[in-house]
Amino acid sequence: MLRVILVEPEGEYNVGFIARLCRNFEVEELYIVNPRCDLNKALEFSAKGQDVLKSAVVVSSLYEAMRDLDLKISTSSIADSKGDMLRKSMSPWEVSQLVGDRKVGLVFGRESVGLTRDEILMTDIMLHIPANKEYPVLNLSHAVGIVLYEIWKTRGATPRKSVVSR
Amino acid sequence: MLRVILVEPEGEYNVGFIARLCRNFEVEELYIVNPRCDLNKALEFSAKGQDVLKSAVVVSSLYEAMRDLDLKISTSSIADSKGDMLRKSMSPWEVSQLVGDRKVGLVFGRESVGLTRDEILMTDIMLHIPANKEYPVLNLSHAVGIVLYEIWKTRGATPRKSVVSR
Ligand SMILES: Nc1ncnc2c1ncn2[C@@H]1O[C@H](CSCC[C@H](N)C(=O)O)[C@@H](O)[C@H]1O
Ligand SMILES: Nc1ncnc2c1ncn2[C@@H]1O[C@H](CSCC[C@H](N)C(=O)O)[C@@H](O)[C@H]1O
Ligand SMILES: Nc1ncnc2c1ncn2[C@@H]1O[C@H](CSCC[C@H](N)C(=O)O)[C@@H](O)[C@H]1O
Repeated sequence: MLRVILVEPEGEYNVGFIARLCRNFEVEELYIVNPRCDLNKALEFSAKGQDVLKSAVVVSSLYEAMRDLDLKISTSSIADSKGDMLRKSMSPWEVSQLVGDRKVGLVFGRESVGLTRDEILMTDIMLHIPANKEYPVLNLSHAVGIVLYEIWKTRGATPRKSVVSR
Repeated sequence: MLRVILVEPEGEYNVGFIARLCRNFEVEELYIVNPRCDLNKALEFSAKGQDVLKSAVVVSSLYEAMRDLDLKISTSSIADSKGDMLRKSMSPWEVSQLVGDRKVGLVFGRESVGLTRDEILMTDIMLHIPANKEYPVLNLSHAVGIVLYEIWKTRGATPRKSVVSR
């Protein structure tokens, strides 16, 4: 089971695009911690992911969004700074091997400042998408798309319960 | 050498995000065929991809955008319809193996109607990103992101000439 968790997202287009991506890649659950944008406006960008967004679970803390999960994965554009254990990271294709039958949560940060160190410390693993060393900072929804694509490849195209059909 | 070619893109956010993705994944060239949106507005969404967008080459036909290329790759959300040879497709990870030292162009279609059959016929290969059988249609810039990420993985993180440093 895969849950996408957005922490305080600021852009309605990103939230809408992410709902669409959840449908494209058969993600079961979308949780949003303290949305900082208008979720109704986000619907405009969600295309056939509207139902995903309408059934998204809005919570007020990251703890609440994660407490029933087996495996918690944070994401960051900053990885493997020398001597900083917190920044040890895994790649999307490594993480995709870990999903299996677990209840897995993928935590994505704010457009402006990402996740705090404390938020990253609440998770088991940090995932970093390798990219241009000079500019590895992807836009939020594009980072979500790449991670979901990579996990979908491994989970395969087998049908499973989706948010929409619950 | 990798060139991203957008055919008549309609959304400024998509064009802006794609310029940013070109910088994230070290794409050398961005060509835009008959833009249907305001490229100045697109700058707002391009973050540190602004220079990529400013040096984008605007042309008036797909032919012009492709004539000096070794390998032309179209993209579509529709793939492998039975009995339709045109729709035989390759996956992003298969295509990534073909780039090597070639001058390669990746052609992406309109948000509303994708690429025409004639446009697909002008290319050597069609690429399809596998996704939910019931809804494999990604938003334009998210499709671009996934293809560029997959090719970047294969090309590796070796420095090379980018649009910006020309
Ligand atoms: N290369 C990358 N790998 C993994 N996640 C990434 C990423 N680029 C962006 N993201 C995701 O997109 C979110 C917004 S980008 C945050 C950028 C912010 N300027 C900062 O200082 O961190 C991040 O929190 C992360 O969830
Ligand atoms: N994208 C991100 N993901 C995770 N932690 C981040 C982050 N961006 C900043 N931080 C961490 O958040 C902590 C304090 S908040 C950010 C302070 C400062 N702007 C900075 O970027 O360093 C810092 O220790 C920093 O390492
Ligand atoms: N699954 C997928 N594989 C490859 N490219 C895709 C894709 N989903 C979207 N795209 C790209 O995004 C563009 C816009 S999507 C076009 C959708 C349109 N309704 C149609 O009928 O085709 C497409 O032209 C293609 O370049």
